[in-house]
Amino acid sequence: MSSVLKKYSVGFRIWISEEHGHFIGLGRVRLLENIKKTGSITKGAKAMKMSYRQAWQMVEDMNSRSEKPLVEKILGGKGGGGAVLTETGEKAIKLFYRLDEKVMKLSNELSKTLKL
Amino acid sequence: MSSVLKKYSVGFRIWISEEHGHFIGLGRVRLLENIKKTGSITKGAKAMKMSYRQAWQMVEDMNSRSEKPLVEKILGGKGGGGAVLTETGEKAIKLFYRLDEKVMKLSNELSKTLKL
Repeated sequence: MSSVLKKYSVGFRIWISEEHGHFIGLGRVRLLENIKKTGSITKGAKAMKMSYRQAWQMVEDMNSRSEKPLVEKILGGKGGGGAVLTETGEKAIKLFYRLDEKVMKLSNELSKTLKL
Repeated sequence: MSSVLKKYSVGFRIWISEEHGHFIGLGRVRLLENIKKTGSITKGAKAMKMSYRQAWQMVEDMNSRSEKPLVEKILGGKGGGGAVLTETGEKAIKLFYRLDEKVMKLSNELSKTLKL
C-alpha cells in the first residue's frame, strides 16, 4: 500500500519431462556437471551436499528416462570405481541450458513492459 | 537405459517479482481468486486448505508490494467482516495468466522439436 512506483519482473524455472515423469531440471544438471568435474558420483554428490544415495537414485532415474545413459559407472579401480558423463549426458546439459536461455529471453522481454 | 524412443517436453513455472522479493505466483493467484469467490480471506483460505494466518500474511505482503492494494478488508458486519478483490487485484490475476500463457506457448513450441 505504498505510493512508491513499483517495478516488476518475471521469474521462471524450467525442466524437461519424459512421458512418465521428471527427467532433468537445474538440480540434476548441476549433479551431472559435478560428476563430470569429479569423475565420481560420490564426490559429485558431496560437492553439492547431496547424499550418495540420492545422487545415485537421480542418476538411475535419468538413465532410465533416456534412450542412452547419461552417466556410466566405471567398476573397480582405487576408491571403488568412478563415473563418467557420456555424450548423451553432455547433450542433456546443453539442451537444458539452451531451453533455459530461450525462456529467459522471453521473460526478460516480458519484464520490460510489466505494469500492474 | 531403455531402447524405447523417448519423448520429452518442457515444463515451467513462472512468478512475478517486485524489486525486493516475490510478488505473485500461481498459489497467490489462486488465493486472490478464492477471496473474490468467497468474499472473505478466512473462507478463501479454507477453500484451499491454507491457514488464515498464512493467507492474511500473503495478502499483507502482496498489498505492500503493489502501488495500490489487491485486497481490501471490510470491517464489521456479520462474521467479522469480509474482503474484496480490488481492480488492481483483478489486474494482477489477469497479468499473471497473460504471462503464463506466453511462456506456455514458447514451451509448447520448444517441446515440439525436443530431442536428446
